[in-house]
Amino acid sequence: MVTISSVAIGLNTVWVLLCAALVFLMEAGFAALEAGFIHSRNSLNIIMKVLMDCTVGIIGYFICGFAIMYGADEAGLIGISGFLVQGDFSHLNLSVPVYAFWLFQAAFAIAMATIVSGAVAERMKFAPYIIFSLLATVLIYPLAGHWVWSSGGWLNKMGMLDFAGSAVVHALGGWAALAAVTVLGPRTGRFGKDGAITVMPGHNLPLAALGAFILWFGWFGFNPGSTLSGLDLNIAKIAVNTNLSAAMGGTIAALLTLFRYGKADPSMVINGALGGLVAITAGCAYVEPVSALIIGAFAGILIVIAVPLLDKLHFDDPVGAVAVHGVCGTFGTIAVGLFAEKSGLFYGGGVHLLFVQTIGVIAVSALGYSLTYALFRALKATVGIRVTEEDEIVGLDLSEHGIAAYNDLEYSPLKSLQHFSIQEPAKVKNEDISPA
Amino acid sequence: MVTISSVAIGLNTVWVLLCAALVFLMEAGFAALEAGFIHSRNSLNIIMKVLMDCTVGIIGYFICGFAIMYGADEAGLIGISGFLVQGDFSHLNLSVPVYAFWLFQAAFAIAMATIVSGAVAERMKFAPYIIFSLLATVLIYPLAGHWVWSSGGWLNKMGMLDFAGSAVVHALGGWAALAAVTVLGPRTGRFGKDGAITVMPGHNLPLAALGAFILWFGWFGFNPGSTLSGLDLNIAKIAVNTNLSAAMGGTIAALLTLFRYGKADPSMVINGALGGLVAITAGCAYVEPVSALIIGAFAGILIVIAVPLLDKLHFDDPVGAVAVHGVCGTFGTIAVGLFAEKSGLFYGGGVHLLFVQTIGVIAVSALGYSLTYALFRALKATVGIRVTEEDEIVGLDLSEHGIAAYNDLEYSPLKSLQHFSIQEPAKVKNEDISPA
Amino acid sequence: MVTISSVAIGLNTVWVLLCAALVFLMEAGFAALEAGFIHSRNSLNIIMKVLMDCTVGIIGYFICGFAIMYGADEAGLIGISGFLVQGDFSHLNLSVPVYAFWLFQAAFAIAMATIVSGAVAERMKFAPYIIFSLLATVLIYPLAGHWVWSSGGWLNKMGMLDFAGSAVVHALGGWAALAAVTVLGPRTGRFGKDGAITVMPGHNLPLAALGAFILWFGWFGFNPGSTLSGLDLNIAKIAVNTNLSAAMGGTIAALLTLFRYGKADPSMVINGALGGLVAITAGCAYVEPVSALIIGAFAGILIVIAVPLLDKLHFDDPVGAVAVHGVCGTFGTIAVGLFAEKSGLFYGGGVHLLFVQTIGVIAVSALGYSLTYALFRALKATVGIRVTEEDEIVGLDLSEHGIAAYNDLEYSPLKSLQHFSIQEPAKVKNEDISPA
Repeated sequence: MVTISSVAIGLNTVWVLLCAALVFLMEAGFAALEAGFIHSRNSLNIIMKVLMDCTVGIIGYFICGFAIMYGADEAGLIGISGFLVQGDFSHLNLSVPVYAFWLFQAAFAIAMATIVSGAVAERMKFAPYIIFSLLATVLIYPLAGHWVWSSGGWLNKMGMLDFAGSAVVHALGGWAALAAVTVLGPRTGRFGKDGAITVMPGHNLPLAALGAFILWFGWFGFNPGSTLSGLDLNIAKIAVNTNLSAAMGGTIAALLTLFRYGKADPSMVINGALGGLVAITAGCAYVEPVSALIIGAFAGILIVIAVPLLDKLHFDDPVGAVAVHGVCGTFGTIAVGLFAEKSGLFYGGGVHLLFVQTIGVIAVSALGYSLTYALFRALKATVGIRVTEEDEIVGLDLSEHGIAAYNDLEYSPLKSLQHFSIQEPAKVKNEDISPA
Repeated sequence: MVTISSVAIGLNTVWVLLCAALVFLMEAGFAALEAGFIHSRNSLNIIMKVLMDCTVGIIGYFICGFAIMYGADEAGLIGISGFLVQGDFSHLNLSVPVYAFWLFQAAFAIAMATIVSGAVAERMKFAPYIIFSLLATVLIYPLAGHWVWSSGGWLNKMGMLDFAGSAVVHALGGWAALAAVTVLGPRTGRFGKDGAITVMPGHNLPLAALGAFILWFGWFGFNPGSTLSGLDLNIAKIAVNTNLSAAMGGTIAALLTLFRYGKADPSMVINGALGGLVAITAGCAYVEPVSALIIGAFAGILIVIAVPLLDKLHFDDPVGAVAVHGVCGTFGTIAVGLFAEKSGLFYGGGVHLLFVQTIGVIAVSALGYSLTYALFRALKATVGIRVTEEDEIVGLDLSEHGIAAYNDLEYSPLKSLQHFSIQEPAKVKNEDISPA
Repeated sequence: MVTISSVAIGLNTVWVLLCAALVFLMEAGFAALEAGFIHSRNSLNIIMKVLMDCTVGIIGYFICGFAIMYGADEAGLIGISGFLVQGDFSHLNLSVPVYAFWLFQAAFAIAMATIVSGAVAERMKFAPYIIFSLLATVLIYPLAGHWVWSSGGWLNKMGMLDFAGSAVVHALGGWAALAAVTVLGPRTGRFGKDGAITVMPGHNLPLAALGAFILWFGWFGFNPGSTLSGLDLNIAKIAVNTNLSAAMGGTIAALLTLFRYGKADPSMVINGALGGLVAITAGCAYVEPVSALIIGAFAGILIVIAVPLLDKLHFDDPVGAVAVHGVCGTFGTIAVGLFAEKSGLFYGGGVHLLFVQTIGVIAVSALGYSLTYALFRALKATVGIRVTEEDEIVGLDLSEHGIAAYNDLEYSPLKSLQHFSIQEPAKVKNEDISPA
């Protein structure tokens, strides 16, 4: 017989599964965004890396990652039960089947790994990326998640509020990306010895923009779905806050670049909107819509500042992952301490929450940076992480996968290769470039 | 405790939010469709304009537009309360949180603005488009929406039936697009002094088709979601009617062009299907599936007639927005007066509803046309609305945003520029074209 | 008044409609995947064929197909009532409105037709494809569906388990594709007289990959939605199994090609993941997650074996439809007999179910092959099914639709035409190629 309770659980399960689907689709968004923002000759490679997150990463999170994140707590630091999503999960007090919860979380785990894929584009080898993807979903993300979202986690116990993961997913991924970039070094020709910066425009900005739209769409699942309940009417406000912050991030980035350069800069506007989405992710359930507008506005400003600043510091992040996820994720986590309706500083809650949020995001960021840095150093010392300069010229599509992304559309690698000191042939076609 | 009522409201909210997400994704569909249907050199610019609808437009509808549409009624003409979505909305008798309703409506508002973006492609400046987008979401769409969908609106009181907006969204947007095109004038070279018409094929029809699929997908939210309730089992018939009309619109356009030219014309088929979607939007909840097939068939016929007719009249609408949204939206609104099961002419209801529908769609269309015409004239007289002919040659991507859409895929602007009387260089590459 | 029962039906209806939307979106995935995997000069044509499935096919399934599939049973072989989705469907014992069920099934029907579109790419005429699409949705798919899913169907009565259609949709479509390929013959130049195989790389692999992501996303509706109920908490496990199998298929294909060729092959990885999705479709509701991993792994292996094998046998399937849908669909159906928790061989259930599954998938496959073979022979003998060799050179976009897919991006048909013995012109541009 159908009971109220069974309908309620059904509703929650339907909600979580459909939101999980939306979050999973964000991988398509990341793939399109990242591919579009880089050269055509490496665009298939980056899509393949994202696909590895969706395949290898999903399996890693199933076998091991979920247990570390949500298994029985050990010392507030790590989960130690529930491998293969088997065993007792009653401590989670779920209102949905554990498999539904796992799927939603798995989509988050691979999102965190994918954030890094963009930052290491156009120069990182394929095989070691698989190892990173596995470690990210098996250990790095699950540890951060355990600390903040598991009831036994030490940051959870401190009262840290990170509703859908400005810290746990985005700051973690963004600063992990910075560590990866630090070890990997910039693309050849990106920064001159005299400090000159070569701009490398994306090869297919319509594709990148389509990716951004898909990411935004996915966020309709990412944030509201984190309630894990369709009965929680707060999902409406969460969805509204999410959209307002994104809208404001894009608006401000458009206006700032319009006033500053006379031209609204497409990649800034796209990253401004994404930065707004990232920044509101921690606080979407806790703040008022007007606060969401303010948070989004600051995210837009931060993007316009952080992207050129990272360039100036010679961190080569081809898609802006550090600025979008690292900077805006960190800001968004801290902003909860200011704007939360119940205990934020601006609402008379004092500095306690602000302090906790700051500690929390620093801890999570340090975790992401240090583990990724260690892994990339270890990989560099063993299997190697960087393709040869020759392969950078040829492109990773051909060198790593034996096939180009575009095979009867002409492309002009020459223009994009002008920073290499090579002789200009009259015309380079696909067939002239043979894989190593 | 979980009650039946709370589960019911939860179900409605989940339904409306997920449908809102689908409708929002239609912006990705519009962006891809419009970009694919025009030259590559302007394709990023049009995507940026759609992105402005999603950012600036969302904020405008939040701060002001929603209040004008659904605030307390004044004289049947305008809402005057509820700015910033604050205050009392009990007169709406909502079965979902007001924020869920707002989000769904916001996605509609930006869709209306985006309809115009396609028609003004390849020649309208970026900054004045932002102003239009803001006015559309702050005033034009909210006024039409108030008249038809607010309980106090004068057309609502007359008994006008426009379930999901054939009039309020599509006819409004389509005739606004015609006004914009009228003031803006055609693209340079489009119409010769001797009346000759230059066909300007889209640069990326697979992208356009992908956009059409996404739009169709979004309509699964647009029409059924307009019930605002998952308890209303009519959502099933609404979804079926929507799909049948689209299928018939595409089928008829394919067959007509196949028989007439010996070749099924891709843009006609795409616009035929979209026309079917637009036409059934008013009546999807009121008509039988067989009527949906008939309505869709007429939409397909109208597209095949209207597109070349508008060309002949020298209205230059690069994506067919006027035909799809204006013509089919108007037809679909009137068709409710014929096919509605309860009061349509063909069902013995007499001419009353037909009369109301006709009055209603004329009023809404006149509103869209006149306000947009006035705004575009004002903008033309002040900041200017049209880029220079030089910038049209260079492309709006470079002139307005400083970057091309495709940066290491070659393109051949020459072919697409043959209607300009310029000297043919041997080969134009991106680097040879510097922004003004 | 709102009752528990009405909320439950509402929940089921919302679930089925949203899942139907996801399955419908798979058409966008197929279109992008197939277009990306073939030459640019035929890419618009294949998208148009997919669009015909969505238009003509939908109408065929509405008027006739659904009745044959789910109408009152005649001899276990065919349904004979319910044309135009009218009449009594009480024998279906639906927990949702019949229109919701129809829409979900319609999306399945057109998916089956679309599977064939990829296999016949780059050489099949447009008009006879419309006839195939109609016959597929009016008769071929409905017959298979009646046998397995209608309560009166002979395979249903034997106890065949095909939860979401590894047999009914995928094996049926995959072996129908083989029949079509057999009659149609390979693309000109694909297989040399000496047995040499010319590889024809896809023109836009990022587009193909985006299509794969969209297909994967759509499977979140395809499999879990087949419960037709949001109250059935098994939807969570179904979704998890679906994702695990896809992940494993992609992982294994990546590792196998990485170890074998030193390079992870993009099309193998994509098809490996899709093969995993296809293979788990029959058993997703009946097997444990660990079994899903095993099934997915075998799917990945099968793809890596079957694709080159079909090449060696000179079946020219440009997108791998036979391997993905035919081979993996057949395997997945049989695998239920091994892995089903209640009655599979590995769970002590003996060989009975294994036997039934094998009989069932053979019957369904034979149906798909034979009807398609007969239709294609009949079409070949009458209207013709194959474009001229000249049109193959020019491309079906121009010859069948009068317009190229890409109109100011240059492309180099020369490279993709090197298997034709034609004189190399200096440069082929769109304008040099005039439609016949």
